[in-house]
Amino acid sequence: MQHFSDRLIARIREKKSCICVGLDPHLAHIPDFIQKKNKEKYLQNPFKAAGRAIVEFNKGIIDAVYDLVPIVKPQIAFYEMFGVEGMQAFLDTVDYAKKKGLLVLADAKRNDIGSTAEAYASAFLGEVDVFGQKVKNFDVDAITVNAYLGYDGVKPFIEACKKHGKGIFILVKTSNPSSGDLQDLRTHDELRHFEIMAHYLEGWGANDIGKEGYSFVGAVVGATFPKVSKKLRSIMSRAIFLVPGYGAQGATADDVKFCFNKDGFGAIINSSRDIIFAYKKSKQFKETQYGEAARQAVQKMIKEFRF
Amino acid sequence: MQHFSDRLIARIREKKSCICVGLDPHLAHIPDFIQKKNKEKYLQNPFKAAGRAIVEFNKGIIDAVYDLVPIVKPQIAFYEMFGVEGMQAFLDTVDYAKKKGLLVLADAKRNDIGSTAEAYASAFLGEVDVFGQKVKNFDVDAITVNAYLGYDGVKPFIEACKKHGKGIFILVKTSNPSSGDLQDLRTHDELRHFEIMAHYLEGWGANDIGKEGYSFVGAVVGATFPKVSKKLRSIMSRAIFLVPGYGAQGATADDVKFCFNKDGFGAIINSSRDIIFAYKKSKQFKETQYGEAARQAVQKMIKEFRF
Repeated sequence: MQHFSDRLIARIREKKSCICVGLDPHLAHIPDFIQKKNKEKYLQNPFKAAGRAIVEFNKGIIDAVYDLVPIVKPQIAFYEMFGVEGMQAFLDTVDYAKKKGLLVLADAKRNDIGSTAEAYASAFLGEVDVFGQKVKNFDVDAITVNAYLGYDGVKPFIEACKKHGKGIFILVKTSNPSSGDLQDLRTHDELRHFEIMAHYLEGWGANDIGKEGYSFVGAVVGATFPKVSKKLRSIMSRAIFLVPGYGAQGATADDVKFCFNKDGFGAIINSSRDIIFAYKKSKQFKETQYGEAARQAVQKMIKEFRF
Repeated sequence: MQHFSDRLIARIREKKSCICVGLDPHLAHIPDFIQKKNKEKYLQNPFKAAGRAIVEFNKGIIDAVYDLVPIVKPQIAFYEMFGVEGMQAFLDTVDYAKKKGLLVLADAKRNDIGSTAEAYASAFLGEVDVFGQKVKNFDVDAITVNAYLGYDGVKPFIEACKKHGKGIFILVKTSNPSSGDLQDLRTHDELRHFEIMAHYLEGWGANDIGKEGYSFVGAVVGATFPKVSKKLRSIMSRAIFLVPGYGAQGATADDVKFCFNKDGFGAIINSSRDIIFAYKKSKQFKETQYGEAARQAVQKMIKEFRF
């Protein structure tokens, strides 16, 4: 069984790209022809219509970019919001992306303790025990985790990573304006809260390093605070950074350069809306060409991160 | 539209009970006769068998306790772990509890920012936009929220609470042993992290106080740290505390007394395993009497919190 970080880096080498495509399918931004078709087909069940529209849209995006990127990141809120049908759309999206050779990172920010955290870890990364039988459920390659509850909330995920060759990305410094409310608090020895989180994370991931030198315990580090990412890179030498905030949230390629190590690895840069809904900002493409528009947006982004 | 805190306190008065029953249906602890029946009925679909066993079990618990308690708290991880069928079981449980006049608090600890947090808030507390049509999804009365991302991550939930008469419970100091890893860090002015969180929370909830004097922004405060709850009660005078950690995690009625205000309100005390799986520790009840065992456990707990 290959270590998660080695699997990820192998795909980064193969695609020559560290881009993560965020599959955040806001229903209202999906091209009209897809909305209309599914709305008419499933008139009696609006949640099913939404779920099927999402899967059709996502398949078009995945078909257009799978050879260019190592990993995709579905944001589970945009699926869960349509209930059971939405979760079926999430499962179908995960399956399709995996069939196309992509790694899948579930952006779920799950967090709990004890047997509850074990339940999440088994559902997303491992196998679920159903009447003594072991069954895979979501079976994604990695998940985002919120560690406000401390190590108790992280340990079950780490154990699932070890056993099943999976990864986690723990929120350290998020990209949003009010991330500082809690994360920037200074402790009495002048370390900021996110630095303490980074030190914990470096420790939690220290025992399981892949052949490429990286841990399966990664960090979410927003692109919007370049000085912070430089500091965090120095604390967490072996963590792969998942970097949100590029593009739509205002960060540039220059802002994220500190997220990488000298080996050129150590970060995946996420972009969601700017890629999957690129057709909305383009005069070049019709809405039926939303996949081509997404492909062009990825190619443009790859050029900015050439290595 | 009634304010969430008024709805909750009305039910506490009516039932003369501040107990919250945690519906954490670990499949392996569900009575054998329920497991067996559903396993045989849905041989081809183990997740469906699990989901249906959970619903049958939960209905038995709800039937046994609905006249004794104001609120139940399904832990969503134990449903989500069985995928689409698990989410259907969650929905069916929520519906059944509401039909029995119970409030329902989804323990989901969701957290994100911007449109993603809006998606969660609309799914759990509000209405989801499906092709321009507004449709209720989970429609629970309240949800737990992790606020590590700051106010950006809380605001969409607060707006949904205002609009739909719902509530949130924000993690402040959790009951688990390693909750201190982050939550107990001291800032340079010697306040601990959870105290800062409490001050934020008091501010976030200050503008929307119900007739009984409480906010719809509540706090999760573990029962396992009595000195901390005393301190937190003094900071968050208008927040209703959701108190986990009683019973199975070791806290006693004496440990949680500081969670209440002088009016006798201000807290709901959760117990999960000790109630719903009470039949396993009892020689008095057969497994078919798991409901009666749960009822007796609730009655015993109510006596400890007589007011």
